[in-house]
Amino acid sequence: MQPVLYGYFRSSCSWRVRIAFALKGIEYEQKSVNLIKDGGQQLTDQFKAINPMQQVPAVTIDGITLSQSLAIIQYIEETRPEPRLLPADPKQRGQVRIICDIIASGIQPLQNLYVLQKIGADKVQWAQHFINRGFEALEPILKQTAGKYCIGDEISMADICLVPQVYNAERFKVDMSQFPTIRRLNQTLIEIDAFKATHPSCQPDTPDDLQA
Amino acid sequence: MQPVLYGYFRSSCSWRVRIAFALKGIEYEQKSVNLIKDGGQQLTDQFKAINPMQQVPAVTIDGITLSQSLAIIQYIEETRPEPRLLPADPKQRGQVRIICDIIASGIQPLQNLYVLQKIGADKVQWAQHFINRGFEALEPILKQTAGKYCIGDEISMADICLVPQVYNAERFKVDMSQFPTIRRLNQTLIEIDAFKATHPSCQPDTPDDLQA
Repeated sequence: MQPVLYGYFRSSCSWRVRIAFALKGIEYEQKSVNLIKDGGQQLTDQFKAINPMQQVPAVTIDGITLSQSLAIIQYIEETRPEPRLLPADPKQRGQVRIICDIIASGIQPLQNLYVLQKIGADKVQWAQHFINRGFEALEPILKQTAGKYCIGDEISMADICLVPQVYNAERFKVDMSQFPTIRRLNQTLIEIDAFKATHPSCQPDTPDDLQA
Repeated sequence: MQPVLYGYFRSSCSWRVRIAFALKGIEYEQKSVNLIKDGGQQLTDQFKAINPMQQVPAVTIDGITLSQSLAIIQYIEETRPEPRLLPADPKQRGQVRIICDIIASGIQPLQNLYVLQKIGADKVQWAQHFINRGFEALEPILKQTAGKYCIGDEISMADICLVPQVYNAERFKVDMSQFPTIRRLNQTLIEIDAFKATHPSCQPDTPDDLQA
């Protein structure tokens, strides 16, 4: 049975999982959970049974249900190791995970929909503040670790996290000229099929007026 | 050379790393980065060179510098595998990581010092809101996965994340009677040496009036 991804076209964490599936060449079914419509379909009892955190993404795979994008991606990595998304060397794996966690714990949660709903009118400045703060840390780190991609010349989980976060930054009008390394990496990655085909602008649940 | 942990007694993410070192029986040196004194020692240029995110913990180990507590702990796990902090079975590893990531991405970042400083006067309600929201998701998940500890009867990274988050919840006066499974697990874990010896109340930089 194919894995099922419960996601939303514009959710950056859902996009991370779409990229991982695409890089691994794994076929999957997408079920859309519209975070806006009906007051948020993630809040229904039906979805709460799938993910008690009431967030996307969630994935059913191999008879289990997983949530939290990095937990999902690492499960996929451990059960479908080729092509690998984590380097073999523990030090390089550490570098990959630092970048993933800066984004997944240090940036994205602070500009998540349910947080911004609680912030209210100041939400754009709030999101900009925390994305800028995170990118100011990522830029010097990536300057040291990057080759063609975030860590050397091999695509990794770090790249999977970076591109959707840059997409969010652009949505919140962050001035990306401050972050030349991040911008350069994003421009390279976004041309790769697995990133292009999974972009929020071309998903089954992308509204017509936002289609690329 | 011993690893060096740059941390702060009350930082829950520093505590995670202290527990991991203790469980593995790894000797390390602690360097205190006082998050309050001098306007926050994590903001100095000297510390920024160690961790551009200007947060604790950071660890120097095996000639490299790591930041982000889960990246640090997984590096330790991959280079010092005994006793293991992740189960052997990929599905169980997935469960461990879901719990870690709910805490590390879904709860802790929203009640972090630098976020609460930006929230201002409403900070206690803000922190309570997001801790409650996260624990409401964790409780039913842990009810299913827990044995003696978070995942079955083996201590894992999930336990390492849970205990410091419960400590934060108590600081913010969250009503823990709503979460009987979390409370029961915490009570069991907190009696274990590796958790007890690393508690914020008995670190080298714990102020005298907060010493246990």
